[in-house]
Amino acid sequence: MSKSKLLIIKIGGNVIDKPDALRKFLIDFSSLEETKILVHGGGAVAAKIGEQFGIESHYVNGRRITDAATRDLVTMVYGGLVNKKLVAKLIQLDCNALGLTGADGNVIAAVKRPVKDVDYGYVGDVIPENVNVPLIHTLLLYGLTPVFASLTHEDGTMLNTNADTIASALAIALCAHFYVRLIFCFEKNGVLMNVNDEDSAIRHLSENRYKDLLAKNMFANGILPKLENAFTALHNGVHEVVIGDANDLIENANGNPVGTIISI
Amino acid sequence: MSKSKLLIIKIGGNVIDKPDALRKFLIDFSSLEETKILVHGGGAVAAKIGEQFGIESHYVNGRRITDAATRDLVTMVYGGLVNKKLVAKLIQLDCNALGLTGADGNVIAAVKRPVKDVDYGYVGDVIPENVNVPLIHTLLLYGLTPVFASLTHEDGTMLNTNADTIASALAIALCAHFYVRLIFCFEKNGVLMNVNDEDSAIRHLSENRYKDLLAKNMFANGILPKLENAFTALHNGVHEVVIGDANDLIENANGNPVGTIISI
Repeated sequence: MSKSKLLIIKIGGNVIDKPDALRKFLIDFSSLEETKILVHGGGAVAAKIGEQFGIESHYVNGRRITDAATRDLVTMVYGGLVNKKLVAKLIQLDCNALGLTGADGNVIAAVKRPVKDVDYGYVGDVIPENVNVPLIHTLLLYGLTPVFASLTHEDGTMLNTNADTIASALAIALCAHFYVRLIFCFEKNGVLMNVNDEDSAIRHLSENRYKDLLAKNMFANGILPKLENAFTALHNGVHEVVIGDANDLIENANGNPVGTIISI
Repeated sequence: MSKSKLLIIKIGGNVIDKPDALRKFLIDFSSLEETKILVHGGGAVAAKIGEQFGIESHYVNGRRITDAATRDLVTMVYGGLVNKKLVAKLIQLDCNALGLTGADGNVIAAVKRPVKDVDYGYVGDVIPENVNVPLIHTLLLYGLTPVFASLTHEDGTMLNTNADTIASALAIALCAHFYVRLIFCFEKNGVLMNVNDEDSAIRHLSENRYKDLLAKNMFANGILPKLENAFTALHNGVHEVVIGDANDLIENANGNPVGTIISI
């Protein structure tokens, strides 16, 4: 029996922060008839609210350093404000959304990142084996659309977790049960050869070409976690990975993606 | 066939704000073997964080006035910070908690309170008929313990909703399927005859005595929404209602409550 299709769609914080772009995205997302999961960040929103609190954002290699105040901030913003805003709008659009963090039903247990050169603080590393597949399966079978905030947990505390990594871990964990297309949506129309040139998107990016371009430092920093997660997903059984513009969701979710198709 | 027992337990914001009291409460809650649901407020936490934002709390008759800034504040604090803190701690205590607002899976649709003498703003009124019983039933059968933040939704926006009312509406909606004991936990050991005298708790409060005491203005304002919700629940088929100290949860959940037993 062939596996049924599952779309795992990650939406970035920059899109969430733009009301018109977000509205179009949510309408498009709701219209997709396949079984689907949404994973969201919210960094842009958290940074704004953090400013009001006097909490500054610190990043190392594109990853936020999460002290206790920042952990509470992102728990509020990702798990509360952003997640519930998305869920309420999706319900209005007849998409039966249900918001989750990794703590809810222990759906994604993580490990607090060990301190090596950098202490990332309350940051969770996820391994796909720790994804609670039976619970997600039950929710999907009921007809719900899980909406994941980029938060996990360990030992009773919430952990800030990269949303791309959560999307990838979910895709890997669920690809035994579903034919999974993983779609990273952001504000560019794919992986750009030149970050300043919107027309430089790569249509097909193989792992060999990726390694070649990486060695030449051709990628912007922001795209690297997406690409690492994309290749990890493909190496672990995920069927398809596309990186593209949130505005092109319909095309990227259907037969002929217009974003960057990643392959190994 | 006799109905299986369901405990619906509401915990107030003042207890959530006290780490030691909260820890004991969560340990006790986790130890209860019956099928159970937790409903929480978080007003004390929201008020503190609101101060940092410069958002003042306004109340009329014990109900918060919710402008757009306050709606976002409570969505963050109740739906994010408090809900996920409780869920993560409960998971650590081997209670399979899953956090919900009324928007998630459309589990509690509400109606924005109509403006009469007072415009309460983004406040939701709940009717038990709008509780999504099949979804809650499915979650309970799976072995999950729903943890409800005091938020509902209508037309794509979140609505601030009294936690006592949510607990009562859930109890009414679920009493056709379960034998429901509804327990309101706060920082007093029951309904007090004299709010300044901790030893003045009423052991049994019938509706006749309630009406008599109400006519004599014997109740503190804070207890009135609980009492109204308690009697509404009993008049709509809920089997048992107890109001008591969060510290006495085990006793109030088991055979012989030590808090105030409400009856009609």
